[in-house]
Amino acid sequence: MRFFSDNAAAACPEVMQSLADANSLDTAYDGDRWSKRLDAAFSELFGTEVAALWVATGTAANSLALAALCPPFGSIVCHRDAHIQNDECGAPEFYTHGAKLLLGEGEGAKLDTDTVSALLATVRSDVHQTQPAALSITNATEYGLVYSPQEVSALGALCRERKLGFHMDGARFANAVVSLDCSPADLTWKAGVDALSFGFAKNGGMSAEALIFFRPELRDATLYRRKRAGHLLSKGRFLAAQILAMLEGDVWLRNARAANAAAATLAEAAGDRLVLPVEANEIFLKVSPDEAAALRAQGFDFYDWGPGEARLVTSWDSDPAAVATLAAAIARL
Amino acid sequence: MRFFSDNAAAACPEVMQSLADANSLDTAYDGDRWSKRLDAAFSELFGTEVAALWVATGTAANSLALAALCPPFGSIVCHRDAHIQNDECGAPEFYTHGAKLLLGEGEGAKLDTDTVSALLATVRSDVHQTQPAALSITNATEYGLVYSPQEVSALGALCRERKLGFHMDGARFANAVVSLDCSPADLTWKAGVDALSFGFAKNGGMSAEALIFFRPELRDATLYRRKRAGHLLSKGRFLAAQILAMLEGDVWLRNARAANAAAATLAEAAGDRLVLPVEANEIFLKVSPDEAAALRAQGFDFYDWGPGEARLVTSWDSDPAAVATLAAAIARL
Amino acid sequence: MRFFSDNAAAACPEVMQSLADANSLDTAYDGDRWSKRLDAAFSELFGTEVAALWVATGTAANSLALAALCPPFGSIVCHRDAHIQNDECGAPEFYTHGAKLLLGEGEGAKLDTDTVSALLATVRSDVHQTQPAALSITNATEYGLVYSPQEVSALGALCRERKLGFHMDGARFANAVVSLDCSPADLTWKAGVDALSFGFAKNGGMSAEALIFFRPELRDATLYRRKRAGHLLSKGRFLAAQILAMLEGDVWLRNARAANAAAATLAEAAGDRLVLPVEANEIFLKVSPDEAAALRAQGFDFYDWGPGEARLVTSWDSDPAAVATLAAAIARL
Amino acid sequence: MRFFSDNAAAACPEVMQSLADANSLDTAYDGDRWSKRLDAAFSELFGTEVAALWVATGTAANSLALAALCPPFGSIVCHRDAHIQNDECGAPEFYTHGAKLLLGEGEGAKLDTDTVSALLATVRSDVHQTQPAALSITNATEYGLVYSPQEVSALGALCRERKLGFHMDGARFANAVVSLDCSPADLTWKAGVDALSFGFAKNGGMSAEALIFFRPELRDATLYRRKRAGHLLSKGRFLAAQILAMLEGDVWLRNARAANAAAATLAEAAGDRLVLPVEANEIFLKVSPDEAAALRAQGFDFYDWGPGEARLVTSWDSDPAAVATLAAAIARL
Repeated sequence: MRFFSDNAAAACPEVMQSLADANSLDTAYDGDRWSKRLDAAFSELFGTEVAALWVATGTAANSLALAALCPPFGSIVCHRDAHIQNDECGAPEFYTHGAKLLLGEGEGAKLDTDTVSALLATVRSDVHQTQPAALSITNATEYGLVYSPQEVSALGALCRERKLGFHMDGARFANAVVSLDCSPADLTWKAGVDALSFGFAKNGGMSAEALIFFRPELRDATLYRRKRAGHLLSKGRFLAAQILAMLEGDVWLRNARAANAAAATLAEAAGDRLVLPVEANEIFLKVSPDEAAALRAQGFDFYDWGPGEARLVTSWDSDPAAVATLAAAIARL
Repeated sequence: MRFFSDNAAAACPEVMQSLADANSLDTAYDGDRWSKRLDAAFSELFGTEVAALWVATGTAANSLALAALCPPFGSIVCHRDAHIQNDECGAPEFYTHGAKLLLGEGEGAKLDTDTVSALLATVRSDVHQTQPAALSITNATEYGLVYSPQEVSALGALCRERKLGFHMDGARFANAVVSLDCSPADLTWKAGVDALSFGFAKNGGMSAEALIFFRPELRDATLYRRKRAGHLLSKGRFLAAQILAMLEGDVWLRNARAANAAAATLAEAAGDRLVLPVEANEIFLKVSPDEAAALRAQGFDFYDWGPGEARLVTSWDSDPAAVATLAAAIARL
Repeated sequence: MRFFSDNAAAACPEVMQSLADANSLDTAYDGDRWSKRLDAAFSELFGTEVAALWVATGTAANSLALAALCPPFGSIVCHRDAHIQNDECGAPEFYTHGAKLLLGEGEGAKLDTDTVSALLATVRSDVHQTQPAALSITNATEYGLVYSPQEVSALGALCRERKLGFHMDGARFANAVVSLDCSPADLTWKAGVDALSFGFAKNGGMSAEALIFFRPELRDATLYRRKRAGHLLSKGRFLAAQILAMLEGDVWLRNARAANAAAATLAEAAGDRLVLPVEANEIFLKVSPDEAAALRAQGFDFYDWGPGEARLVTSWDSDPAAVATLAAAIARL
Repeated sequence: MRFFSDNAAAACPEVMQSLADANSLDTAYDGDRWSKRLDAAFSELFGTEVAALWVATGTAANSLALAALCPPFGSIVCHRDAHIQNDECGAPEFYTHGAKLLLGEGEGAKLDTDTVSALLATVRSDVHQTQPAALSITNATEYGLVYSPQEVSALGALCRERKLGFHMDGARFANAVVSLDCSPADLTWKAGVDALSFGFAKNGGMSAEALIFFRPELRDATLYRRKRAGHLLSKGRFLAAQILAMLEGDVWLRNARAANAAAATLAEAAGDRLVLPVEANEIFLKVSPDEAAALRAQGFDFYDWGPGEARLVTSWDSDPAAVATLAAAIARL
């Protein structure tokens, strides 16, 4: 009963079926009929014309997006706890050829306009400093909070005012959309987002993520960057097929709902132990080492998250029985 | 009846089965039990201790290997027609941070020691020129020729003498091994190769390639580079599983044999039309535009390859009936 | 009467004379007889074998040093107020090909072992994070404080223990040496420093800085990096000559003494207005906007440094009369 | 009597005087009054609005220009013997973050439109290849030939048609202008050149080159790139002053005339021994090893240039007596 990471979950049946369906001879790279459907599928989902590219990882999606928005001599505002800062081994620096990340604070890995404005104010507008060129937020955040459309909109307005590109790391975009019960459009381009890393792997996919540009003109250079980074898979149809399978019939929402519901169950059981509200599929708990050991003794696996805290992540396939058992165990602590 | 590219072929049944088998909860990234078996599996195959990493594309494998062997201020000797020069949109330059490729000639995209020595002799050993740090050859080559163990050995000896790292792009390594009927060891580390991009995608895989270091100490830095390039897939077990499935029972050899055999059938039919000997699974034919049109009219698809020439590529799943029909059609021209 | 920056000062007479002396035909780049004397001159000064390279700017010296000590996938510990972080427009990221800076706090831009250890402790030793590879400190600091040989030594010991390269940005190294009245050796290699950016431009030079490697084997790759960065000047003798002229007869110490003495005069006059002790040639003063305006009205130019503070920098050629007048003006405030 | 390189020549008196004149306190970097005059001075010289930046080396000027014209995933057409290919240790690759150079042939290091068109035709317009983004020519070439305004214009028209940026490496621009007796405007922007590396160091300067953008909007990003590369010297006035001193009174033309005249004298003496016409200040001679030894025995130094050839370079300060003696010696061979 592992609650380590949604990264570790299985791929959902629709995704597995899509691989079988796509397993025929077709054009290599992204010339196949699945890949060619991505633009239309996402344009329909978002209600606006978008450019949609598959990649194999969220790190690649994030870094390609940032490279499209920020020159080598620019900087990217993000939260100090952002995945792009802490968990990608400098991929944004690699892809942007050395841009800097400008780190802000904020509870639960969330940034607000005051924080961003204050950060921007620390930068002198001279050639001795890299100039901010983009803002990147994660929704849902690395701590399981969500930005509402209004919050994103406020940041988006700031980006427009300060001429910053706006990127959303949506590794758990589905969980955010489900949590907010909002439209994907309201949470993104209508709120000023230029590029979205739309995550599928954590949500029941096998090996595919989508990079969505709401300014389709950002696509062209990115196609070269993707190839050059070794991310133009020769049998790209297997990535496109996964993504299409999850869009069809709203599997992506169904999966996220399951993960969020499991998290909600655990959150309810946790009560005062919660370090942060549970708004998506991550739960941060105050637990003593003894309590953590007790939970593990019952067969539950999870990460310690600093002293006296633990992180649990639910996923699309979290077993309801295991979740219920864990909820009870937490309540019993 | 498409003979465009082995890139476009389907994934073989064992690979598809391996995905189903790996589709359970496990550790993320490369901490899972499949990924952990790679070193041992390849060490056994090669009869020496190797470090083996999965990546999603041959471009990534090649570029990571080259970055391990060549500093940003070095250069890499390769053939003018090498995939790393012509078909990776500068990925080696991206991953090495700007190393130069030093281009040699040679029939069928093959280099020999004379050519390499002559190229090396053009470089002044001063700081105004990037200094050669690596040699990269492709086996089987982009034109379907193979380097024998003896030929590789000769180049390997030159590399040792000149202190060059030695990389083999083995996108079609299986086809070369089968063609030469030699041991993988003889064709690689015993001949001085330091790093091998061991291709699976063109040979019946779905999305996995192996990067093999015969100097295992090259692994450490590469792990960071792989992550930083966005090539550490979160569900890496699906890549490892594909590779293991193709090693098991020598599926990789079986698949390559099928492709090579199909090519041999076409080669025999082609006779004097062959531009180059057919030693793997690529056939280069002299055909007039009218002849090419005639073949296409019969339902065969392939690339034109310069004026009066065509390229046909067979794959593990080339339909024997289609191959026979095509052979007859070629013979009839 | 400008106290903006020692960057803006004139070149000292010995430097100007050296240019005339070097103005004859000689070998280009660094093959001339001045450039060839650098290693010996600095080896003598430091009492150990060093490799010494001229470059035209401190930014280049710092970045080349860091590139020699840190791989693209590494990180560099430095102070949040370090020049390499704040005033080089990402040059370290450019030269290292995307390494990250890991920022610590500390009064007056000084780091101590506790701070550095704490920073290192925030890094997980996995491939998802860049691993610390170097420590960079500035001596004298950007706020005019100095690290004593003991303090440097403590950091050097930590570097050895944690396998970090150790770089000292010595844009104002002369001011530090004079302030501490210590030997250059004690402040550098004997304390564990691997590479020193030895500044001359702020101290009466025209356009030359020296990059000193106490591990001479770091030179080789750096020669290529210097050329590749466009920093191998064709008439390098003019840089070498400046440096040699300042080493000869200890002009570099004489100049720094003058700058430090001027600063001390101002510091004494400032009394409680000092934000930080004055240990080199920078003075940070608490002054109200009205007071700052009053000083400016008397003809003194300087930078505001945040609300209610001002920075004054003295230099080798600060006019004693102007300094005395300014000291009196400050005392009168 | 050294005829190795104009790189090794002395700085001319006007340049030395300019350093003395600029040796007073002023604003650091490029905020001083000399630096601020560059735009106007070059705009006047070229008869159009230009942006003019000083840098310390031709390599930096070339690389910054190319980075302004070519993205990391682009390629730059140049001659196989171009300085940017052969003598800058990959600086263009460093500054552009990995663009490729696409190498053409042509006598005397000259490209023509046929060659460039043929090179462009080798590139597939797909994402698997870097797409040509710029053309770079050297005028006068590395072999001492010049491109006429008409020849540059023809290449410029091709650049416009193919949407290529157009860079001229003018390390010996003065020698070309003098040789052609044309206006600087006719040889550059009127012929379609976007960026010019205007050389001063080889022509009597000490350490300054000018980077001229005929599309001034290319300046902004370049200012950041220059800083980031460590090429924003703190006392930039000393570079600007050199350049201004050489523009004033047409010192740059006077110096180039002297160098070209010396070369012409040698060329006349050389007669049939000339490998190439002498159109600027470089002479390539057919000389046997014995003959070369004989010249050297008379005190003349120069580079061998391949078997049976020698290169001699004259400079602004080539001693007329030495030139005459050498001419006689050559004639006597």
